[in-house]
Amino acid sequence: MVVLFESPAGPSEQEEGETFRPRFDASGLVTAVVTDHATGGPLMVAHMNAEALDRTLETGIAHYWSRSRQSLWKKGETSGALQSVRAIHVDCDQDAVWLSVTCAKPDDTCHTGRTTCFYRKLDLQNRKLIPSIS
Amino acid sequence: MVVLFESPAGPSEQEEGETFRPRFDASGLVTAVVTDHATGGPLMVAHMNAEALDRTLETGIAHYWSRSRQSLWKKGETSGALQSVRAIHVDCDQDAVWLSVTCAKPDDTCHTGRTTCFYRKLDLQNRKLIPSIS
Repeated sequence: MVVLFESPAGPSEQEEGETFRPRFDASGLVTAVVTDHATGGPLMVAHMNAEALDRTLETGIAHYWSRSRQSLWKKGETSGALQSVRAIHVDCDQDAVWLSVTCAKPDDTCHTGRTTCFYRKLDLQNRKLIPSIS
Repeated sequence: MVVLFESPAGPSEQEEGETFRPRFDASGLVTAVVTDHATGGPLMVAHMNAEALDRTLETGIAHYWSRSRQSLWKKGETSGALQSVRAIHVDCDQDAVWLSVTCAKPDDTCHTGRTTCFYRKLDLQNRKLIPSIS
């Protein structure tokens, strides 16, 4: 088995070290938050296993792990909505990554045909969803 | 048992309906992405169970579920870094929420004493972590 990344370490190394030690969960995944490089707005939340993370770093194109299909997912491979990675940040305990991306086809970022998966806002009073983009 | 939220439905209702139907995972959690209301920058990624989500909506102050402590977590209860919720967006299949918040003590957003948990950037060439804020 090829080891793609270093293993997690104790808190001081994990939080302050310069070694990338993604902390994959019991399912072998880290959470990926994806934002638009131009606007900074959130686009989607996805998950990455070691292979998806490695392919993303190798190619500069975002790859995820599809939990529903249980397979490697090159985002946009079918729709053309490929995501070019401009920056990746890692959180304190390294179980989440934040990708800033440029989309090749912004209108197809969400599978519903929208520029973001976060197209509804929650009315905090009555707990109903309100469209925030069309 | 008190039912706090409606159950998930089929794709069209889940994706296009106005009813909030959070899709909790096998551990009873949704992913929460938290951004700064003023700057839009990502602050942290956390998780919410139904109780945390309900308490957040009731009080306007962000509550999460601590997976490490396995308990309800009112963010900032000890540090004072309470998060006032300005807006919540929900993603297409409703298994992730995006909170835009104002922090009472921005310098203590991360437990390491930083304004965000995403204080390191990944050098995409050599896969090393570089501090992006002090």
